[in-house]
Amino acid sequence: MLYPAPLQKLIEALSRFPGIGPKTAQRLAFFLLSRPREEVSGIARAMVEARDKLRYCSQCGALTENDPCSYCTDLRRDRRVLCVVQEPRDLLAMERTGQFRGLYHVLHGALSPLDGMGPEELRLGLLVERLTGDRCEELIIATNPNVEGDATAIYIARLVKPLGIKVTRIAFGLPVGGDLEYADELTLSRALEGRREI
Amino acid sequence: MLYPAPLQKLIEALSRFPGIGPKTAQRLAFFLLSRPREEVSGIARAMVEARDKLRYCSQCGALTENDPCSYCTDLRRDRRVLCVVQEPRDLLAMERTGQFRGLYHVLHGALSPLDGMGPEELRLGLLVERLTGDRCEELIIATNPNVEGDATAIYIARLVKPLGIKVTRIAFGLPVGGDLEYADELTLSRALEGRREI
Repeated sequence: MLYPAPLQKLIEALSRFPGIGPKTAQRLAFFLLSRPREEVSGIARAMVEARDKLRYCSQCGALTENDPCSYCTDLRRDRRVLCVVQEPRDLLAMERTGQFRGLYHVLHGALSPLDGMGPEELRLGLLVERLTGDRCEELIIATNPNVEGDATAIYIARLVKPLGIKVTRIAFGLPVGGDLEYADELTLSRALEGRREI
Repeated sequence: MLYPAPLQKLIEALSRFPGIGPKTAQRLAFFLLSRPREEVSGIARAMVEARDKLRYCSQCGALTENDPCSYCTDLRRDRRVLCVVQEPRDLLAMERTGQFRGLYHVLHGALSPLDGMGPEELRLGLLVERLTGDRCEELIIATNPNVEGDATAIYIARLVKPLGIKVTRIAFGLPVGGDLEYADELTLSRALEGRREI
């Protein structure tokens, strides 16, 4: 035995986090052992409580304590625009801009046949239902700028356009504050394509 | 409200870990929310149990479930050699080499006046007690190769030498597999100083 059993178990538990290897897990474990008992149980409680209390909104799929969520029930939000994102964290990224005041639809994934993610896995039936039922005028697609996100955006556009709803996708281009010299070719090509008159 | 409250609390809790910023904490939080309830409570339980069950050995200061620890009570270990390390994780690093079969003494720190770490904080009285009581012949100092570790090593050497015990310090030099070209000047100087006939 190298580690005492409870330490071994803790390191294994922490290693389950994405991006946390055995070395980092060991460092985090020793940190926990050096903290007051109350603090450690506080962190543990926060984990269990978040897992227990949060669910996905049955309408938009956002993380929420109450269903439907505070976005869907907020009457000040603009029901004429719906924004499609892949994950709940993408929704939060959109919210942080403070620029979007419509409703959301979280797919919880993107089309990826190799990972077994087909259209059925993406809450698309519900999306169509919401678009036909609601008085939506524009669907903004904010899937990731990669192969899966592109495929998903195209699939949704084809699905939704027959409903007579305007479908847009957020722009690709140089990140603000970025340096043109260091932009990759693909980003720069997309920035060129998306050029606008000033 | 941007995050639902339980998520906000979880992110804050995870941000307390050293080296985990708000971005990583958010990533870890979303990971937890995506896992089965049982797995999350398992991780939480591992934290609390490790904190509750592990203590420091009253003899050597190692992390242990039982006091005295399995190192101190292992009669197959060589009681003539004692190795001084700063932290419990350093002890584990020494054990992983499989080359040391003596006993340990964990200081739980190093001399660092700016951080309020003086000799009183370092379990040094207990060290001297163990050295006079036991039949120790050699004290190997394995404190870190930095200012605090050096100061601590020198302090301990002065403290222990009058007891007639041989005091050594583990070697400094090029890391094995390292590249001479990329070694810093200090490491290379120490490697030169510590040269041995082959």
